[in-house]
Amino acid sequence: MEKIFYPVDKERMEELLGSPWLEIEETTRQVRDIIREVSESGDQALYNYTARFDGVKLDNLKVGDGEIKTAYQEIDSSLLRAIKKAVKKIAAYHQKQLQQSWFNYDQGGMTGQLINPLERVGLYIPGGRAAYPSTVLMTALPARLAGVKEIVAVSPANKEGKIPAPTLVAMGEAGVDEIYKIGGAQAVAALACGTETIKKVDKIAGPGNIYVTLAKKFLYGMVDIDMLAGPSEVLILADGTASSRFIAADLLSQAEHDPLARSILITTEQRLIEETEKELEKQLSVLSRKDIAGASLQDRGLLIRVENLEVGMELVNRFAPEHLE
Amino acid sequence: MEKIFYPVDKERMEELLGSPWLEIEETTRQVRDIIREVSESGDQALYNYTARFDGVKLDNLKVGDGEIKTAYQEIDSSLLRAIKKAVKKIAAYHQKQLQQSWFNYDQGGMTGQLINPLERVGLYIPGGRAAYPSTVLMTALPARLAGVKEIVAVSPANKEGKIPAPTLVAMGEAGVDEIYKIGGAQAVAALACGTETIKKVDKIAGPGNIYVTLAKKFLYGMVDIDMLAGPSEVLILADGTASSRFIAADLLSQAEHDPLARSILITTEQRLIEETEKELEKQLSVLSRKDIAGASLQDRGLLIRVENLEVGMELVNRFAPEHLE
Repeated sequence: MEKIFYPVDKERMEELLGSPWLEIEETTRQVRDIIREVSESGDQALYNYTARFDGVKLDNLKVGDGEIKTAYQEIDSSLLRAIKKAVKKIAAYHQKQLQQSWFNYDQGGMTGQLINPLERVGLYIPGGRAAYPSTVLMTALPARLAGVKEIVAVSPANKEGKIPAPTLVAMGEAGVDEIYKIGGAQAVAALACGTETIKKVDKIAGPGNIYVTLAKKFLYGMVDIDMLAGPSEVLILADGTASSRFIAADLLSQAEHDPLARSILITTEQRLIEETEKELEKQLSVLSRKDIAGASLQDRGLLIRVENLEVGMELVNRFAPEHLE
Repeated sequence: MEKIFYPVDKERMEELLGSPWLEIEETTRQVRDIIREVSESGDQALYNYTARFDGVKLDNLKVGDGEIKTAYQEIDSSLLRAIKKAVKKIAAYHQKQLQQSWFNYDQGGMTGQLINPLERVGLYIPGGRAAYPSTVLMTALPARLAGVKEIVAVSPANKEGKIPAPTLVAMGEAGVDEIYKIGGAQAVAALACGTETIKKVDKIAGPGNIYVTLAKKFLYGMVDIDMLAGPSEVLILADGTASSRFIAADLLSQAEHDPLARSILITTEQRLIEETEKELEKQLSVLSRKDIAGASLQDRGLLIRVENLEVGMELVNRFAPEHLE
């Protein structure tokens, strides 16, 4: 991991902060070709890309009711309880975000804002390297609470042609209406353009890898999108009272998502940097996804020492990380 | 103008509704090159592009206080009164949209949403073919009400190297902090990437032509944007009680913006279609911008007769026009 002492290494810090969002021309071209192929060849393109990129020959794009029932039988009852508990908590949170229509008659006419749910939205749920039931809940529940009529989820199949059981159960609990076993730029293209099997949606939400993100960017305008989610980031700002064991675990929790993920510790304490390094080494060695997490820490991890917490907070604001602790 | 009887001409209607948002590869390449040039050569690129695209050699990018004072002297007092009145009304509207932070402690921890203003935003105010003081007010006032610290506006200079006086006065009244005489993709690039003179912003808002829109799309991710605004659209849904004189005037009010603007009348009355056509011809003949408005009506205008208003409303929902009357 790169170590920086700020403001001594100010120049290097500015370089890191100023680095462009993405260097992506070649990938953009690939994504554009995939989108064109899906918009022209529909389902057939989806079968072909799934065979090529996900390494599995699908019989059906759509997940059947039987598969969802099986998923419920496959997971532990403790996991089902955890998902149900999360549904309640996440729904309670998003309930507070609901907006209200309003009308005003005091300006010699009527002004106002009419808040209506979208008809049909598509959720991109990442897969491949791991299962993300939490992403299902955090994207589907706001849509359901908003009153969206049709909630469609896509997620890549594994080598057995299945979406992992925890993900399917989360979709069942969150009230997803249709599920398709596709991922990558081709799945985003199917949601935006429609195919024989998949009716196109009004908006696409949910995070993904660089192909998914660039496909969302490319199709934005034809379809609405939530945002462009970059690779995962976590930034921990810590003073001397923090536990290096917890810091290391939380840095790894994002590093294990993606070799491009960025995990950053900013602290006033040189001691904490050294202890965290040792903890990272220890915890990494027993991590099942140590190759990914190790690559991420090696290439993109940052350990930053600052003179005081105020300077640390300035850096936090400039990084504006996805996750901040 | 193309005439359609729906649902008899259903196939043609679907073609119009399904047409892709933009066919843009060549333009995207041009925009990408402009962005690259501005990010590499800064101010010099802005001077060069302004000379090339806007046909004017600027001495300064920034509008000085003297120019704003002069603009106030140049406009009629009735226009100043109208702008001041609009400021009050538009501010009263956006005041109602302000969001509040909230915090919740009933889930065994704290959850919530912290609403903070952005530090610095850039407003793109179109120019060239016309002056848009209303765009200034409708973009700057929400930013000011939200508490944005630095509001920067860009707008292309005319052949005399000036931003039109009504636009400058609107900027003065809306509380814009910095004004630059640049437009097009190069102005969007300057706001997103920064130059020697222009500090980069957190978000870019405001409509523009296809170059501006594609530049916003390209830079989205490095900078936040409000939305991708297409060419202007107006759709009027009318029953037999509507005045063809008003309909024609309102169709022209968008047609005159851009040859790519789209003006649509949907009505149950064949008579109203014929009367509107005559009115359009009459009003167009005395319009100062009749070349643009005429091209827009000719190539993109639609007169649609429907069996009943319910069918009309279905079409309205599918078009989802920018302006609906």
